[in-house]
Amino acid sequence: MSTINNKVWIPIERLRTFVIDALFAVGVKSEDAKMVADVLITADLRGIDSHGVSRLRRYVDGIRKGKIVAQPEVQVLQRGPTSAVLDARNGLGQPAAIRGMEMAIRIAEQMGIGMVSVRRSNHFGIAGYYVLRAIDHKMIGVATTNASPQVAPTFAAEPMYGTNPIAIGLPTGGDYPFVLDMATSIVPRGKLEQLRRTGKSMLSGWALDPNGKVTSSIDDVVEGLINKRGYALLPLGGAGEAYGGHKGFGLGLLIDLICGPLSGAAWGKHVYGPDGANLGHCFLAMRVDCFRSPEEFANESDELLTEIRVAKKAKGTDRIYIPGEKEAMEQKIRLLSGIPLEPPVYADLINIASEVGIPVIQPRNEVQS
Amino acid sequence: MSTINNKVWIPIERLRTFVIDALFAVGVKSEDAKMVADVLITADLRGIDSHGVSRLRRYVDGIRKGKIVAQPEVQVLQRGPTSAVLDARNGLGQPAAIRGMEMAIRIAEQMGIGMVSVRRSNHFGIAGYYVLRAIDHKMIGVATTNASPQVAPTFAAEPMYGTNPIAIGLPTGGDYPFVLDMATSIVPRGKLEQLRRTGKSMLSGWALDPNGKVTSSIDDVVEGLINKRGYALLPLGGAGEAYGGHKGFGLGLLIDLICGPLSGAAWGKHVYGPDGANLGHCFLAMRVDCFRSPEEFANESDELLTEIRVAKKAKGTDRIYIPGEKEAMEQKIRLLSGIPLEPPVYADLINIASEVGIPVIQPRNEVQS
Repeated sequence: MSTINNKVWIPIERLRTFVIDALFAVGVKSEDAKMVADVLITADLRGIDSHGVSRLRRYVDGIRKGKIVAQPEVQVLQRGPTSAVLDARNGLGQPAAIRGMEMAIRIAEQMGIGMVSVRRSNHFGIAGYYVLRAIDHKMIGVATTNASPQVAPTFAAEPMYGTNPIAIGLPTGGDYPFVLDMATSIVPRGKLEQLRRTGKSMLSGWALDPNGKVTSSIDDVVEGLINKRGYALLPLGGAGEAYGGHKGFGLGLLIDLICGPLSGAAWGKHVYGPDGANLGHCFLAMRVDCFRSPEEFANESDELLTEIRVAKKAKGTDRIYIPGEKEAMEQKIRLLSGIPLEPPVYADLINIASEVGIPVIQPRNEVQS
Repeated sequence: MSTINNKVWIPIERLRTFVIDALFAVGVKSEDAKMVADVLITADLRGIDSHGVSRLRRYVDGIRKGKIVAQPEVQVLQRGPTSAVLDARNGLGQPAAIRGMEMAIRIAEQMGIGMVSVRRSNHFGIAGYYVLRAIDHKMIGVATTNASPQVAPTFAAEPMYGTNPIAIGLPTGGDYPFVLDMATSIVPRGKLEQLRRTGKSMLSGWALDPNGKVTSSIDDVVEGLINKRGYALLPLGGAGEAYGGHKGFGLGLLIDLICGPLSGAAWGKHVYGPDGANLGHCFLAMRVDCFRSPEEFANESDELLTEIRVAKKAKGTDRIYIPGEKEAMEQKIRLLSGIPLEPPVYADLINIASEVGIPVIQPRNEVQS
């Protein structure tokens, strides 16, 4: 658990109300604002601070600048026995994405499997949120999205596609479900920004300079990515093919094909245009009992995960983590402690409050020690 | 194209006939033998020599030693509107896997999406073969399997699960389809064996010694893996979490959960028991027109892949490959040239011929230059 020092602690429901009020103030319907708040707060609860309320600024600005539609009427463009295509009408990503996953879940309830794609959407927060909703229905869930171009294909020297994350969750047995939620680059830009804010360095091998050479200059990389100066993140597996970089590239490109051309959204370098974004998402829900009784699956998956956890440890390490375990641990803690915001993030919420005309958010009983 | 030197070139149909005859001679039904041959020859055609006819030895021995059932009656254990569960009855993996993917395709024809799991199976060859069958039906295909335990979880010092490959293919436009077919370890054991046979070295960071330390001693690693002495391959992303090794581990573990506990097969360290294997596979087929017209998808995916190909190249490289491109190129060449076998692989086919009592296979017009 992070120390109380250098963080501003906010009780969860206070943070949730603030997000809802801020979005409502810029014109978002209350129902949609609640959905966005739930996705952001879930990220903060699970320790994925880069995708929590720190993102509120972009959404508020996007709406105020007319790049994101405040009150879109999400449309069902196509329905099949097991599938649907939604048009988010350039509204916020989360409400469209939740509707997409919920529709996939309802289809799966009837048919066993359901898959829904969403086009003309915006940033949808953590992919893991949507698979947690499938898990709430005892289903397997998959959620994926494309993203702004920041990653270089294997052997390329420029960013051509996004960090294109994928989350896959299963209602495994034990205290928390298996939730793999990963960018297909080695690290996402948010992590680099966070390291830089806290004065830390980056490892060599995470990113390329505009000549396609590996670099570890964190200032150059972060600014080069933000200002589109040709810097690029590397796919999982790194530069070239020697350590499997072509596999990470393949996964990222696969997601672009599915969320872009297949979903009818933009792709590659084109997902953020001058008039706003046209991101695509894809959601799949699947009933466990298509293949196995949910009880048998829960018991056996718990056995498998337990065997993995108790495997012989490498020297210098004492714990093996299952995907989703760290996040579930953090969630347990933060449900009690509230959310620790970095001071610049808190300061930005104060600014948003004054810009949109809502009360300033108060931290937990000021001085605690 | 490989040189004629040091290789034994065999015309494709001659090799196919040989595989069918050898399997028929040990009791496999002709229909099943043809399926196995098609999977092995496709691997050899696509340049994935580690999964081609070099695998015939294991299948023939498995059947002769009673570890693989020669004439199993593959059973449908469960059917849902979009799913099925097959029991391969411990027969060869390929015939069960082909039936699984074909069933997924037939379900998808009716319902849009179909998913079929297979339990009690054996090694199924290249995962990419099955997605190519989906692509033949203009569908998206996914094929995955678990495998013998050779990979260490992040922070572990022993092999706990397999290289658990996944293949995903899409009927993209252009000269060949997008086919990502990847082990979830950095490299599969077959690649290390091949490097060792040809006197080459391995890179540091691909594998661990029994203390969980990274090693580059190829003899120790290959023999340690074969003889189960605690050596382990590393997941995509490498040791620890610094370069995303936990993501590669998460993918491999995900596949074990789906192919093991969900499919009702064995998992982790238990997939090969004293009485033979109990591998699980999973196949998914999906119609493109659930989401987009196939023509629009083909055109736009071709645009995306073309943009990727013409991206600025890193210094010292002049080409960016799309997943499946190298294999499609090799297939074009080998369809004309025949299959170049390494002499030990050819020698083994000669031995198999004499063991099972079929005519020796003849290479292409002996001396060519």
